[in-house]
Amino acid sequence: MSEPVSWLPVPAGSPFPIENLPFGIGCVNGGAPRAVVAIGNHAVVLDALMDARLFAGVDLPSGLFAEPTLNRFLALGRETWRATRNRLTKLLTDPAMRDRAAPALVARSDVSMQLPVTIGDYVDFYSSIHHATNLGRLFRPGAVPLLPNWRRLPVGYHGRSGTVITSGEPIHRPSGLVSPSNHTSEDEPVYQRSSALDFELEVGFVVGVGNERGDPISTAAGAEHLFGACLVNDWSARDIQSYEYQPLGPFLGKSFATSMSPWLVTLDALEPYRVRQPVQDPPVAPYLECTESWGFDLELEVWLQSEKMRRAGLEEVRVSATRFADMYWTPAQQLAHITVNGASTRPGDLFASGTVSGPEPGTEGSLLEATWGGERPIELPDGTTRAFLLDGDRVVLRGWAGGDTRPRIGLGEVAGTVIGDSTGHLTGEG
Amino acid sequence: MSEPVSWLPVPAGSPFPIENLPFGIGCVNGGAPRAVVAIGNHAVVLDALMDARLFAGVDLPSGLFAEPTLNRFLALGRETWRATRNRLTKLLTDPAMRDRAAPALVARSDVSMQLPVTIGDYVDFYSSIHHATNLGRLFRPGAVPLLPNWRRLPVGYHGRSGTVITSGEPIHRPSGLVSPSNHTSEDEPVYQRSSALDFELEVGFVVGVGNERGDPISTAAGAEHLFGACLVNDWSARDIQSYEYQPLGPFLGKSFATSMSPWLVTLDALEPYRVRQPVQDPPVAPYLECTESWGFDLELEVWLQSEKMRRAGLEEVRVSATRFADMYWTPAQQLAHITVNGASTRPGDLFASGTVSGPEPGTEGSLLEATWGGERPIELPDGTTRAFLLDGDRVVLRGWAGGDTRPRIGLGEVAGTVIGDSTGHLTGEG
Repeated sequence: MSEPVSWLPVPAGSPFPIENLPFGIGCVNGGAPRAVVAIGNHAVVLDALMDARLFAGVDLPSGLFAEPTLNRFLALGRETWRATRNRLTKLLTDPAMRDRAAPALVARSDVSMQLPVTIGDYVDFYSSIHHATNLGRLFRPGAVPLLPNWRRLPVGYHGRSGTVITSGEPIHRPSGLVSPSNHTSEDEPVYQRSSALDFELEVGFVVGVGNERGDPISTAAGAEHLFGACLVNDWSARDIQSYEYQPLGPFLGKSFATSMSPWLVTLDALEPYRVRQPVQDPPVAPYLECTESWGFDLELEVWLQSEKMRRAGLEEVRVSATRFADMYWTPAQQLAHITVNGASTRPGDLFASGTVSGPEPGTEGSLLEATWGGERPIELPDGTTRAFLLDGDRVVLRGWAGGDTRPRIGLGEVAGTVIGDSTGHLTGEG
Repeated sequence: MSEPVSWLPVPAGSPFPIENLPFGIGCVNGGAPRAVVAIGNHAVVLDALMDARLFAGVDLPSGLFAEPTLNRFLALGRETWRATRNRLTKLLTDPAMRDRAAPALVARSDVSMQLPVTIGDYVDFYSSIHHATNLGRLFRPGAVPLLPNWRRLPVGYHGRSGTVITSGEPIHRPSGLVSPSNHTSEDEPVYQRSSALDFELEVGFVVGVGNERGDPISTAAGAEHLFGACLVNDWSARDIQSYEYQPLGPFLGKSFATSMSPWLVTLDALEPYRVRQPVQDPPVAPYLECTESWGFDLELEVWLQSEKMRRAGLEEVRVSATRFADMYWTPAQQLAHITVNGASTRPGDLFASGTVSGPEPGTEGSLLEATWGGERPIELPDGTTRAFLLDGDRVVLRGWAGGDTRPRIGLGEVAGTVIGDSTGHLTGEG
């Protein structure tokens, strides 16, 4: 495709230029949720385009884009996703289409974004070698940090799909049993509000076309099944997690909330930014081999703003900047792994990469790592420090590919503010 | 309630006498799935009763029982569940109602039972002290079998909701990476079909009324939220599980299939069989304390039939008989635990007890325990032995309360036959 230019002005640096066109679900001016696509500061209401017969020739069932989730669209398959996106590119770049397409545009500020899909199953991986090594050191001091199976298969577990929420929904500080000495031990545990609440910076992938039980998805077929990517904040209560997680893995320490960004960026939009994943040594089993490049050259950031900063008019500060390209395990491998035992997947299933951490200071995807278990708190511009999150803290994840000389394909952002039990629902952000 | 007698003859020993009335979803003579209630050898088609205005006075939305799942009925709450069941009792016992109600009855043999609910999240617990001790010994030889957190909280993890199936659906033998020496080690793993396929005998509980995020369910409120119980076979590939499960818990070793019985037995039907749970020592945290009795006096059995037995006309044999009453953690505690961190639940969420094992030989809820890791294979009437399941093996779980002098409240049964990859879908049972 030659470089398309939209007749709609897109601000420089926007995460959503004409080359992106991510899909989401939004309520326009308080209306019912429906499918929208982002471009610059605008959103395209897809159902309005369909009503105007501007999707003629694309095989789409009527009413598809008036549904409150993208699940049925995702089930239609890559050819339909691509034809829909290509038609949108045409409508938004061909000046002759402007008069017919423009009525379907609304200001993004008038759109309240919702969870884009009903998530059947949510799987969380553990695919950054730096993160897994750090957590091994922190949770199992004195032992070999990376277990022998880690380089053999993408370690993962099922999370709670019912508590996946989207940007702006409040994060209730969880309570649970914790060990006074803060690790699994013979100590008598104490029931309390978590004092070690953390974020985890991750990238999520959403299944479009599922598979039947007994019929695994190969790495080569990944692009036929994966619809797109988003940001995921896998909020974690480290004190609850460390007390409960043996022997069956994380449960309450993670299940209280997982935030995903509302815009799903298609694999087609990310295609120019696919890069070769790191060499895997030892070589992986045949079902995990990838001939295609399944790394993504994404920049990722975590920003933090305390309530005190907000009240003082201080902007959020960046507490981590890292890259996704050197993740050890790729989404195609993760999907092949989820299904290799014959497990089925459904449109809207979500799996997340695991916390994305780099090897250098400042590239950690969690406070647990950045503060080394709370030993080295970070300093905020309001004069306070953070070992873990306090009530009122707002965490924003951002991510994008490109920029500078190449089109910026933004994942947008996902934000959440921690509220205490006592404040209830009152201080949730809009 | 005095002892009701139905005008419909119910065979002696039936799991479904008038005192039970479990709910399910069935296709009658190949028709669309709809809500049914079992009585004896018959099923009551609820939508037909509604069409005949026999639910007048019970607050039920029209079309409710023509839906393909029970989720919307479950969301209506205990008062509605109870009013519906009381009305059914009246219709099936009052001879004056016979002529009007009888047209809604069909032979159960004409009904193909389906999964009764769309399951949002599936959680699997680990609440039998005998099972947890056995597995600790088998998976962590030489270490203390029961970890310190086990008596402090009901250990559990999220399973895969998308592969929960119902009775009669085939079980595809999973493949995955396993250690040649069959435990987590530095060995180079081998990709192969599981050679350690197992059943797990469990009891499942289905959430009726969910809770909002940030608003936990107390143990005292359990009966307002829990709709009913069923049998669960949490199929497990022990070789895949033991290689993968550290540090984040079971994943592919469990996610390929979980079978639940199709009839949901209400808490009201089980009420006469509630018993005091075992004393918990040390005392549990306040959020886990139960003033009510939340044990259930259920008998549970596992039956096995090989393909060779089937061909020779040999009936299935019982390989385990155990009881549910001495489970250490109760469903009210499990639901309180799931939500204590503020996690939400939804109508149709399923959680299972964990494998039910007793302390004596013959009471183990899995082959892993019964054969002690395959060391002591069991003998079948066809002259073969089993360390783990072979292709063609059919496993049937059965469970009930009462019998003999008291009404039998049956959970019915859940069956599944293991098929190899090579046989595909061809040998699945009907």
